[in-house]
Amino acid sequence: MSSEFGKILKVSVFGQSHGTAIGVVMDGLPAGEEIDQSELQRFLDRRRPGKNSLSTARNEGDVPEFLSGLENGKTCGAPLCAVIRNSDQHSKDYDGLADKPRPGHADYTAWVKWKGHADMRGGGHFSGRLTAPLCIAGGIAKQILSRRGVYVGAHLRSAGNIWDEPFSEHLTAELFEEIATKPFPVLNDQYGEFMQGVIEKAKRDLDSVGGIVECAAIGLPAGLGDPMFAGVENRLAAALFGIPAVKGVEFGDGFGAARTRGSKNNDRFAMEGGKIVATTNHAGGILGGITTGMPIILRAAFKPTPSIGKPQKTVSLSAMENTELQIHGRHDPCIAHRAVPVVEAVTATVLLDLLLEGNHGTF
Amino acid sequence: MSSEFGKILKVSVFGQSHGTAIGVVMDGLPAGEEIDQSELQRFLDRRRPGKNSLSTARNEGDVPEFLSGLENGKTCGAPLCAVIRNSDQHSKDYDGLADKPRPGHADYTAWVKWKGHADMRGGGHFSGRLTAPLCIAGGIAKQILSRRGVYVGAHLRSAGNIWDEPFSEHLTAELFEEIATKPFPVLNDQYGEFMQGVIEKAKRDLDSVGGIVECAAIGLPAGLGDPMFAGVENRLAAALFGIPAVKGVEFGDGFGAARTRGSKNNDRFAMEGGKIVATTNHAGGILGGITTGMPIILRAAFKPTPSIGKPQKTVSLSAMENTELQIHGRHDPCIAHRAVPVVEAVTATVLLDLLLEGNHGTF
Amino acid sequence: MSSEFGKILKVSVFGQSHGTAIGVVMDGLPAGEEIDQSELQRFLDRRRPGKNSLSTARNEGDVPEFLSGLENGKTCGAPLCAVIRNSDQHSKDYDGLADKPRPGHADYTAWVKWKGHADMRGGGHFSGRLTAPLCIAGGIAKQILSRRGVYVGAHLRSAGNIWDEPFSEHLTAELFEEIATKPFPVLNDQYGEFMQGVIEKAKRDLDSVGGIVECAAIGLPAGLGDPMFAGVENRLAAALFGIPAVKGVEFGDGFGAARTRGSKNNDRFAMEGGKIVATTNHAGGILGGITTGMPIILRAAFKPTPSIGKPQKTVSLSAMENTELQIHGRHDPCIAHRAVPVVEAVTATVLLDLLLEGNHGTF
Amino acid sequence: MSSEFGKILKVSVFGQSHGTAIGVVMDGLPAGEEIDQSELQRFLDRRRPGKNSLSTARNEGDVPEFLSGLENGKTCGAPLCAVIRNSDQHSKDYDGLADKPRPGHADYTAWVKWKGHADMRGGGHFSGRLTAPLCIAGGIAKQILSRRGVYVGAHLRSAGNIWDEPFSEHLTAELFEEIATKPFPVLNDQYGEFMQGVIEKAKRDLDSVGGIVECAAIGLPAGLGDPMFAGVENRLAAALFGIPAVKGVEFGDGFGAARTRGSKNNDRFAMEGGKIVATTNHAGGILGGITTGMPIILRAAFKPTPSIGKPQKTVSLSAMENTELQIHGRHDPCIAHRAVPVVEAVTATVLLDLLLEGNHGTF
Repeated sequence: MSSEFGKILKVSVFGQSHGTAIGVVMDGLPAGEEIDQSELQRFLDRRRPGKNSLSTARNEGDVPEFLSGLENGKTCGAPLCAVIRNSDQHSKDYDGLADKPRPGHADYTAWVKWKGHADMRGGGHFSGRLTAPLCIAGGIAKQILSRRGVYVGAHLRSAGNIWDEPFSEHLTAELFEEIATKPFPVLNDQYGEFMQGVIEKAKRDLDSVGGIVECAAIGLPAGLGDPMFAGVENRLAAALFGIPAVKGVEFGDGFGAARTRGSKNNDRFAMEGGKIVATTNHAGGILGGITTGMPIILRAAFKPTPSIGKPQKTVSLSAMENTELQIHGRHDPCIAHRAVPVVEAVTATVLLDLLLEGNHGTF
Repeated sequence: MSSEFGKILKVSVFGQSHGTAIGVVMDGLPAGEEIDQSELQRFLDRRRPGKNSLSTARNEGDVPEFLSGLENGKTCGAPLCAVIRNSDQHSKDYDGLADKPRPGHADYTAWVKWKGHADMRGGGHFSGRLTAPLCIAGGIAKQILSRRGVYVGAHLRSAGNIWDEPFSEHLTAELFEEIATKPFPVLNDQYGEFMQGVIEKAKRDLDSVGGIVECAAIGLPAGLGDPMFAGVENRLAAALFGIPAVKGVEFGDGFGAARTRGSKNNDRFAMEGGKIVATTNHAGGILGGITTGMPIILRAAFKPTPSIGKPQKTVSLSAMENTELQIHGRHDPCIAHRAVPVVEAVTATVLLDLLLEGNHGTF
Repeated sequence: MSSEFGKILKVSVFGQSHGTAIGVVMDGLPAGEEIDQSELQRFLDRRRPGKNSLSTARNEGDVPEFLSGLENGKTCGAPLCAVIRNSDQHSKDYDGLADKPRPGHADYTAWVKWKGHADMRGGGHFSGRLTAPLCIAGGIAKQILSRRGVYVGAHLRSAGNIWDEPFSEHLTAELFEEIATKPFPVLNDQYGEFMQGVIEKAKRDLDSVGGIVECAAIGLPAGLGDPMFAGVENRLAAALFGIPAVKGVEFGDGFGAARTRGSKNNDRFAMEGGKIVATTNHAGGILGGITTGMPIILRAAFKPTPSIGKPQKTVSLSAMENTELQIHGRHDPCIAHRAVPVVEAVTATVLLDLLLEGNHGTF
Repeated sequence: MSSEFGKILKVSVFGQSHGTAIGVVMDGLPAGEEIDQSELQRFLDRRRPGKNSLSTARNEGDVPEFLSGLENGKTCGAPLCAVIRNSDQHSKDYDGLADKPRPGHADYTAWVKWKGHADMRGGGHFSGRLTAPLCIAGGIAKQILSRRGVYVGAHLRSAGNIWDEPFSEHLTAELFEEIATKPFPVLNDQYGEFMQGVIEKAKRDLDSVGGIVECAAIGLPAGLGDPMFAGVENRLAAALFGIPAVKGVEFGDGFGAARTRGSKNNDRFAMEGGKIVATTNHAGGILGGITTGMPIILRAAFKPTPSIGKPQKTVSLSAMENTELQIHGRHDPCIAHRAVPVVEAVTATVLLDLLLEGNHGTF
């Protein structure tokens, strides 16, 4: 078991980069939910390559076909399966890679694990291409959540050493929508320009650069999640590390909290309009693994794209000797900006699962 | 379900800070493993409070009683249950807290979740006290792992803004043992002095400070873990966020990788003594969720202890109005240094689970 | 992982027959539920040995101690752990058994699985003694269910070839209570007399006899359970086969349905008091894995107690040669009548889990 | 979550009877396993309708398309997805059924669960059609098992009140193959003739009849499975109750064991060729949830097909009043004989999962 997460809502992803199709099964969706397919397509298009000069030229279309789970455009309770055919495979671009594991990729570990039987064309099941079915799941989850007043949004917090502003404490569905429609998903477009410069420079250098995605969710009730190992942080982290290239996940002030003092990090409680609120949100909306009712704030760190044009030292698996590898073909010099909707998608799917589970604290 | 993790080896933690007892059930331990109880006790003593002036005075002893799972000092295949009685409860120190949720604690979320029925004495089930049974599990896992040549060690990487050196790439069981026997668990004792100064200063200010624990594991074979959502990172993160106060988890260069370039972050492969190795370890021993055979490197960020002596604004749950709270009693001005063996414990338990599962890639 | 079941409410059982203690962890109980300990004790006493001449003389008391999960006699949301100390161990009665696996027992399979490290005293973790912690869990579940108008009851449907009447379609909490207070748990005491005769005859012959327990639950809403592999039948069966000696489970007319025709087996729907009901209940309250709102009816088949006084052929594990075994000591000539509350317990625990999960069909 | 089972090998089924496609995802298959597609097709054809006058005329073809998980005809470690398009839908045959729940079907419970949003055409996700993807999974599992010397076979043990001979204790791969190639899957063809007569009589009466499938597996090592709730019986039962119309599952002598005595039911151990064997197999190859090394023997009871031609009383969901329903179209007068490969398929899939997990008793 591997390519699956969720408790009430199970999401199972399948496919290889250059196989017949990629897809997702969502088992446990509530019935009667309309899927607005053009809205879903707009969401999928946000991660699509080929939008600008920063992304790979592969234009996949990525129009999902629904094989099950819908009846007259609405979910019917049965597991929903959606697939995307792989039309544009270019396997030859990857010729010879199978013998020379690409540094930073899963080629070597896949070769060890599956003893030479792994499909290593274009990363196989480890390819960033597998984030397309994750976005189908997340796009559907976002539609269902928004009907309950829960909204999820994200922006690129950094690329290389250039940083966008952080999310403020005043988060709205409108702000999320505004970022979603930008060609480059940042809060402050000036910083976005700088980031694009950094990415383009890396591309010219036949190199790549990493980045951090910041994601927020508003509208969740307090009391979701369970203590210790089934908390909101545990479940979100377990799913977020499933996105290729994620190497770190933090909530609220995260690693920054480790540098500060309790008097600064503790969010004070206060009455506001008859309700208990926290006057700050260093906790990122989660205390003891359970939602406080404040916005969820998280960040996921993406390593630089491992595929770079520069020659790299590696080994030949057949000859078991040192060799060198030069990767040709199209590669994103940065994947973090394309990962913005993917982080939203995974976050939304986990939050829908938590909402479906509800608060079983009492009943 | 909440206080449990694991797939082949399930670890289930129970107890409240001021209840009758705390304990752990380990279901799925291999049979025939001797438990060296004095070695286990030495491990448990590492997280024990009262070791020096930096920790709370509560001296709990923490000698586990084994209720099941052993036969003549060896595991017998049946679930192992070990408990620690709570002898030193001091409930009165916490009088009145139940009505005033402590900022930064789970008091408020527990109150919402369990609608006033939570045991809020001393943090109840959310207390750092619950890390004692985690250390029983981890101490047992460490003994079993070490017989297979797998060693887990950790140090305090930072306290506030003071940083210890990072783990180098030359990690040995001896180094881990050396840190484990130090009164303050750092690599460079000079930095350790500075850290203790920072913690003592926070204590004098009736405040607290956060820190980062860095943990490593050596001796694991390549090929453990599964792609996407059942990778080594996913499982470790899901468990590590179960340690109270953890707000961030990263592997290898983690968030640092987001600031660098692919040419620097990609670990090149090379032949060494007839085997394939990576010449650097920015990946922290994990690519595509699967072990590379290099050391696992991870970091967990701990927020500052929420219990501080300074008066803090909060609300009264009974009166639903603003009020102020001053927490008396003993509190650690920093928990990160006491969390060092806890991070080791959780890491070791997850890695034992992965080893027990083995590599099902082929069979 | 093994000794655990449940989804929202996880129940984990530990202990060996002759170890220090046996016990149970219930993780996921709703908070604020009062546990009436004298009512629980009455329930536990129903499975207690030593009630009459048909049961073993071992008088265990079986008074649970609660280590966690309660606050002022009510559940507090944290995992509940309850243990029973093993005071009356008589290990010598079982001397030598370890080398000669008892036919029909798990001695041999435990020896194979744990390569000689299993605790084989009195059946170890496979002992019927482990049904005591199951009854703690079930007794608590029954109290919580009864507050929601859900009642679970059972009777001995057969012992050897003697059959009690089946449950009629008019099931009430009062009927369940009436059976529960009988010294021998049958509907028709005349048949109960015959059954006891059959059991006593087996005892005089140094032999044993099997039996069938029929269990029912009333008051459940329609719509619980999920299709295919997470249906009510799947979950109940998975848990019921965890009771030692169960070799068959059926729902509604079960194996009898295989002998009949659709025109007879189909339960017709009709309006009754403005509600849809089924006019018969051959389906045992479950269609497509989902509750119909009619009573749940199930049966569990118990094989004859494998411990019999007659000499039996077996092998010596140390000598690897044929030998003979005569089991001394006390053994129940039938366990099915003592299993009646155990089947109730497991059924109630699974149904509480289903109720806690609720109907996520829409939300 | 619902339409999924398995621990190391997860099998997730999707589709509705009259939707676009049905299919299965197998996540956790070992890599490097060749899938012989013509052998798989032969297996799928065994459950295919339209083979003789006893089955529905719908000729579905049922040729699976593999979307992922294969590379050059071998498994590659990534999740395998296979789908079958629904070409022959005949939705009009079912017109009006949606409003009148068919007695014995899941129409009513699906309507309650999904509040009117269920796809009720032809049983939707509850249709026997969903056993086709189960057979894809099982056919693949059987190929992988047979390479390890594990064989699974089944026959129709009864239809109505006519019984085939039981499996003897001498089971071979050749016997299983012989039954598999018969037009009617029984051991004794004479009894098979009688059974077909009973089924044809039911058909003429516009009625249906139930039956029992007996399944066996040979070649498994001793020591697989875990005690209590993760035993071989628990896992097989949990999956087998996922086959539509199964109402009972038993192992070894099952319900028959409840009628006998210990001296008869206990399988004696003996040395045979230097190995420990049981001289009989009343336990069906499982003691304490763990395999003994003897053949696994199980039986699944199928209720009569609920779709019958006779008029039946039911209700109108829209009018909420009593009404009558007459089901037209093609319906199997018995599904038990077509279920023979389905029981094999589910059994094989669970056993492969157990083999992949291996025996973690020691390591």
